Amino acid sequence: MRLHRSALAALTFWTCASVAEPLPQDWVDQARAIGYEAANSNIAYSVVESLTTEVGPRLAGTEAEARARDWAVSELTKLGFDSVTVEPFEVPLWERHIERGRIVAPGEQPLVLVGLGGSASTGDAGVKGAILRVESPEALQALADGSAKGKIVFVDQVMARTQDGAGYSAAVRKRRETGEQAYRLGAVGALIRSVGTSGHRFAHTGQMKRAGTSDLPVVPTAAVSGADADQLGRLLDRHDSVEVELVLTSEYLPAAQSGNVVAEIKGRTRPDEVVIIGAHLDSWDLGTGALDDGAGVGVVVAAAKALMDAMPEGPDRTLRVVLFGAEEVGLVGAKAYAQKHQADLDNIVLAFESDFGAGDIWRLDHGVADDALPLIKSMTAMLSPWGVIPGKPGATGGPDISVLAQAGVPVITPLQNGWDYFDYHHTPDDTLDKLERHSLDQNVGVYAAILSVALREGVYFK
Amino acid sequence: MRLHRSALAALTFWTCASVAEPLPQDWVDQARAIGYEAANSNIAYSVVESLTTEVGPRLAGTEAEARARDWAVSELTKLGFDSVTVEPFEVPLWERHIERGRIVAPGEQPLVLVGLGGSASTGDAGVKGAILRVESPEALQALADGSAKGKIVFVDQVMARTQDGAGYSAAVRKRRETGEQAYRLGAVGALIRSVGTSGHRFAHTGQMKRAGTSDLPVVPTAAVSGADADQLGRLLDRHDSVEVELVLTSEYLPAAQSGNVVAEIKGRTRPDEVVIIGAHLDSWDLGTGALDDGAGVGVVVAAAKALMDAMPEGPDRTLRVVLFGAEEVGLVGAKAYAQKHQADLDNIVLAFESDFGAGDIWRLDHGVADDALPLIKSMTAMLSPWGVIPGKPGATGGPDISVLAQAGVPVITPLQNGWDYFDYHHTPDDTLDKLERHSLDQNVGVYAAILSVALREGVYFK
Ligand SMILES: [Zn+2]
Ligand SMILES: [Zn+2]
Ligand SMILES: [Zn+2]
Ligand SMILES: [Zn+2]
Repeated sequence: MRLHRSALAALTFWTCASVAEPLPQDWVDQARAIGYEAANSNIAYSVVESLTTEVGPRLAGTEAEARARDWAVSELTKLGFDSVTVEPFEVPLWERHIERGRIVAPGEQPLVLVGLGGSASTGDAGVKGAILRVESPEALQALADGSAKGKIVFVDQVMARTQDGAGYSAAVRKRRETGEQAYRLGAVGALIRSVGTSGHRFAHTGQMKRAGTSDLPVVPTAAVSGADADQLGRLLDRHDSVEVELVLTSEYLPAAQSGNVVAEIKGRTRPDEVVIIGAHLDSWDLGTGALDDGAGVGVVVAAAKALMDAMPEGPDRTLRVVLFGAEEVGLVGAKAYAQKHQADLDNIVLAFESDFGAGDIWRLDHGVADDALPLIKSMTAMLSPWGVIPGKPGATGGPDISVLAQAGVPVITPLQNGWDYFDYHHTPDDTLDKLERHSLDQNVGVYAAILSVALREGVYFK
Repeated sequence: MRLHRSALAALTFWTCASVAEPLPQDWVDQARAIGYEAANSNIAYSVVESLTTEVGPRLAGTEAEARARDWAVSELTKLGFDSVTVEPFEVPLWERHIERGRIVAPGEQPLVLVGLGGSASTGDAGVKGAILRVESPEALQALADGSAKGKIVFVDQVMARTQDGAGYSAAVRKRRETGEQAYRLGAVGALIRSVGTSGHRFAHTGQMKRAGTSDLPVVPTAAVSGADADQLGRLLDRHDSVEVELVLTSEYLPAAQSGNVVAEIKGRTRPDEVVIIGAHLDSWDLGTGALDDGAGVGVVVAAAKALMDAMPEGPDRTLRVVLFGAEEVGLVGAKAYAQKHQADLDNIVLAFESDFGAGDIWRLDHGVADDALPLIKSMTAMLSPWGVIPGKPGATGGPDISVLAQAGVPVITPLQNGWDYFDYHHTPDDTLDKLERHSLDQNVGVYAAILSVALREGVYFK
């Protein structure tokens, strides 16, 4: 059976859509035409340009994120969605204040670093200690309780650059666990080599297990840039002791306002059956979140608008665009969405999202019922003009959508090329000029083509 | 005559060294052999690695610059120079403290900026004002006295990327003059689009006319990154008023310690005739000064060491390596050197320096007597294996050496490829990983080959 399927997949790949059932050729033609048209609109870029310019950074729970919701409501209403709603929820708010680090011995040198979201505060006086370097989270975990007393732990693990994001999945444990592990060891602070691949001197932030919400307390924890991690490594090679001072102050508010923005194009014949496309509205506080996740917002809004224009009478099913709040700080918006709509999750035919930058989509991963695999194959073949190849099962649909996937909603992941995404991700360098417009447009085309099929009544993924 | 010369130059270029007089072929062969050998040593890289690792940033007048002098004395002594001397002088010291900027209206957004060296301080309270954008220093100068009262002036001129550094020469006026022009206009502060070409979110510092030493007082002045300048531009396109807040605090000390480090290989037959090669030891405070000017230090030290090894009995003339202090803040070390050695400047046969990063040398510019032009042509032909083409007259030898050139010393500029130098120059991103080792080695080869000719008795450039 497995053999049979992979033979079929190969056939599909090499011989194009005609052998792949069950999509009728006229559906394929229409989907492609809608996709081409969608890719030619300039809407995605102008959406990202507007969001990143008018709002800029939009950390979950801040006034800036509230402005992003206002922006979204205004833009989506202008674009002609049938309904635009804000669904509020609360989120813990962690805000950085002073962040400063320097090597104090053997000679004074500044460090480029950034606090991790949820880090404990050092207070204005800061902390000082000798560096204890380990190569990995595993090596850190293997150390005995109290064995880094008074020191500053430094987890110097290098992240692999990969097309599919596998390097990130492997590296993110370091960001999540170092703070609490360092506490267990008795350290006064912790540093990690940034979870990122930038060859420039940027530190990458991101959420760690949060002070007060983790099983263990955490120490003040920051990420240093790759160049600074290299510098620490060279100094540790030369000197018995390298001392560092960290001043990382921050403020923690347990319950601030956030919200999801939900816009719908009502289905004509099956209004209760819903296809969801998502992206997140919040960003980290350093860059303007052009790639993470302004690009996703642009792609899903532009794709939805293309469907609206291609089907003035409305699609069969309802298309729901969800711009999640508070993704970065722990999928808080996605969880709030799933809880609020718990009773209706069965009506979601398919959900997918865009939250991996603006690189070309090259693979269609999926988390659907076995019965829907021929449909996925056929849809993949339909996407071949955009260079999409057959993907893998077990997809979770992306960070926010994974919450729905866990609740049994069928999902797909139109996988983007993430080769350089982590050069910018969670740094001040995530700004508008990094968008590859041609790739952004390719994404819009693929999303619109997929939607034109998924919104047809009778097409099921479970 | 002009025609004749350029015809000769063309001949030289196409037919190689044999037609170019007056260098004997065995000199050319020896120079090339010494150059090849020099380029194969790993000394330049290990010098830069050591300086940038052990000392890191080394702002003129600071304890870090003093450490750099100690480092240089120790390294040059270890390498076997006949004498290593520190020649002290005083330099004004400007140090940045807090630097923070944000857009406050129409909506709050942080700015990536950095104070310019010599900027006035805003005090802890900062300054706030509406942006007045102009396109160029010329447009700024054209405004009437008092016409930017209470505003923050923003000079949004884009720097051209060029191979030969011409874009920098054109852009640097903006950095020098904006602070005092803004004062004349009654502004409370000033911003410039960074003098630089980085496509990443770095602001570039550099010296402006210094508070207290300029004809006019200056306002607090900072450079914003290219992305932030773009963002301000887009907001100004959309809104009548864009307000910015700047907190730029700094401290000014009129007389701190600096010094030049001078190392010599004594001449055997003509010890009083001197060839100088220079670089600067100080750097800005943000990066580790790997390209500006760690690379130059590496090149001249490695080239001198290659000569030492190739001529165990010593060269005819004295080779003097000058590692200037306090270049960045106004060629203070170069001026101190020229003053101290005023009586001996006539004995300098030739002077050149390396202070333009680590790109390949591609052209040999010159500022020598007309009688020496055939020699320059011949030397250029000698350098053809390294891809060097005939250069232009009127060269000043580089920033520090220009002070000697003005005093009548013959100079050359082995011009480096500066295509991406200003991506890193004066930013935190000027770190060791940016060095192209192959190009660094090419520089060492060219320097060593030139030296092997210039150190011969009887070879004159004036
Ligand atoms: Zn994201
Ligand atoms: Zn993110
Ligand atoms: Zn320089
Ligand atoms: Zn410089």
